Amino acid sequence: MNKINLKEKLSLFNEHWTPKIVGELNGQQVKLAKLQGDFIWHSHENEDELFYIIKGTLKMEFRDKMVVLNEGDVLIVPRGVEHRPIAEEEVHVMLFEPAETKHTGKVEHELTKKELDWI
Amino acid sequence: MNKINLKEKLSLFNEHWTPKIVGELNGQQVKLAKLQGDFIWHSHENEDELFYIIKGTLKMEFRDKMVVLNEGDVLIVPRGVEHRPIAEEEVHVMLFEPAETKHTGKVEHELTKKELDWI
Repeated sequence: MNKINLKEKLSLFNEHWTPKIVGELNGQQVKLAKLQGDFIWHSHENEDELFYIIKGTLKMEFRDKMVVLNEGDVLIVPRGVEHRPIAEEEVHVMLFEPAETKHTGKVEHELTKKELDWI
Repeated sequence: MNKINLKEKLSLFNEHWTPKIVGELNGQQVKLAKLQGDFIWHSHENEDELFYIIKGTLKMEFRDKMVVLNEGDVLIVPRGVEHRPIAEEEVHVMLFEPAETKHTGKVEHELTKKELDWI
């Protein structure tokens, strides 16, 4: 039951598109990620996904619109909805989602991580 | 599927110890609260509870220790663990917990809110 400082945790890694687990509660995990560039289109069949922007500007592309997220913004992407995160410059995010969520959803891609690390 | 700006949402209310719901995902709710003063000792029988400090300093008292949380800190209080939040000055927090979580846990108190509002 120790506190987790997000900035300190973010200083521990530099990889992009590689979420790190920092906490778990009620079957959900709290993850931190650094994003830069365009990710792939994907959806999560059974999991809603929350993005909280710690630093930077994240564009979330949907099939019918684009949502621009800045520091302090939260976006919940409902299950089944295709989305594609775009980070023109580096973005730091906190994610909340069920422990079993794969970050590329149903899509198997070279970016897909099989096992995420705790930091 | 609209973004939620935490600072904007926080500007919509002033009451202390009255969490407001801003989002829901996977049976969990995201809540915002303003805290000032001492809360009551309580625990949540079946729910882990996450605190994220948006502004201020929150002291979380446990029966055997005290954890001091500052802006950008996260603390997960596991189910069953008695805790008491103390905010000497006003603190703004984001909470993440199952939708059915009562903020005073099993304790019925004048501070207990029966129904939380969405903002």
